[in-house]
Amino acid sequence: MPSRLAKRASLEPETIHAILDEALFCTVSFAQENKPFSIPTAFVRFENRIYIHGSVGSHFIREIEKGIPVCITVTLADALVVAKSAFHHSVNYRSVVLFSHAEKIEDPENKTAAFEWLTNKIVPGSWEYLRPIKQTEVNKTTVLAFNLDQASAKIRNGMPSDDEEDLALPIWSGLIPLENKRMPPVPDSSSGNIPVPAHLI
Amino acid sequence: MPSRLAKRASLEPETIHAILDEALFCTVSFAQENKPFSIPTAFVRFENRIYIHGSVGSHFIREIEKGIPVCITVTLADALVVAKSAFHHSVNYRSVVLFSHAEKIEDPENKTAAFEWLTNKIVPGSWEYLRPIKQTEVNKTTVLAFNLDQASAKIRNGMPSDDEEDLALPIWSGLIPLENKRMPPVPDSSSGNIPVPAHLI
Repeated sequence: MPSRLAKRASLEPETIHAILDEALFCTVSFAQENKPFSIPTAFVRFENRIYIHGSVGSHFIREIEKGIPVCITVTLADALVVAKSAFHHSVNYRSVVLFSHAEKIEDPENKTAAFEWLTNKIVPGSWEYLRPIKQTEVNKTTVLAFNLDQASAKIRNGMPSDDEEDLALPIWSGLIPLENKRMPPVPDSSSGNIPVPAHLI
Repeated sequence: MPSRLAKRASLEPETIHAILDEALFCTVSFAQENKPFSIPTAFVRFENRIYIHGSVGSHFIREIEKGIPVCITVTLADALVVAKSAFHHSVNYRSVVLFSHAEKIEDPENKTAAFEWLTNKIVPGSWEYLRPIKQTEVNKTTVLAFNLDQASAKIRNGMPSDDEEDLALPIWSGLIPLENKRMPPVPDSSSGNIPVPAHLI
């Protein structure tokens, strides 16, 4: 049954880490009086944790820093799966769902390390090039870590799983791959005369 | 203050609809005993509602079809905002957050209409080309609608908002645009001899 083989779940750290390291954004959810709230945000994985950050005054950060249960999802969409019937249309994706709760990172050195990991994930190689971070900036920002003990991956790949009796129909089926690309950098008005650094080319 | 102007919130339907119509996937969150659960899924907007679907047996669908509070988020990432300091790095994005609860679509004609909208959103122009949907397929699938009355959009655009005193530093700042592209279709083994239909080219 190809439709069963196409999707698989995994608890393997290597599989989970690969998805987390490729995705730039996650959606963090929490609940108050059984009402859900969700926020998309950037994140970085280091070892067995992911890290997010936000303004110390943000309502969202102040709620989840209490250590209440959160659900964090990460999704990479790889292809639209175009079957011969609408019913068998699908998406090839790699996703991670994580149940966890925040650990607030208080130590300034550890906080700064998290900023370095996050900055170098979003723009690889950039941390050393930038104006160094200031202690006041570290103080204005909360860093929260979430361990990955309750993370699981789900992956669908491969071709459509059409019904046996549809396979001979003269209807095209296959994949439309989706590509997520970084385009050439666009300087702002302060940077027109500054060479684009090597890590951005 | 450019940092304030760069981000804006909107309750305008046109702004919200444009984001919902461009994005293919949303994240649906709900809570049980104050524990959040989130699931990414495809969706389509029609008039003042969005529609999702799933197997009638799915735990997720069976929970939210009860009409409990849900939070649905949609995010389009447009560019990485590269500042002269790590602190002012940001992301240009367009997002929608919706608080709502499911209305289960029971009428077979309305359900079929939702499948048509969804199919034609994911693969524009494809519904009429496909093997027609069967009543048994409609029966196996739950369709849930969520009205947009409590939807809001948040948008960041424009260049980095560096500190005034950093503007003269010889550090490159600007945008790295992100592009989400559909690549040329890849046929499966049943479709090698079938011409790629016009709506896929």
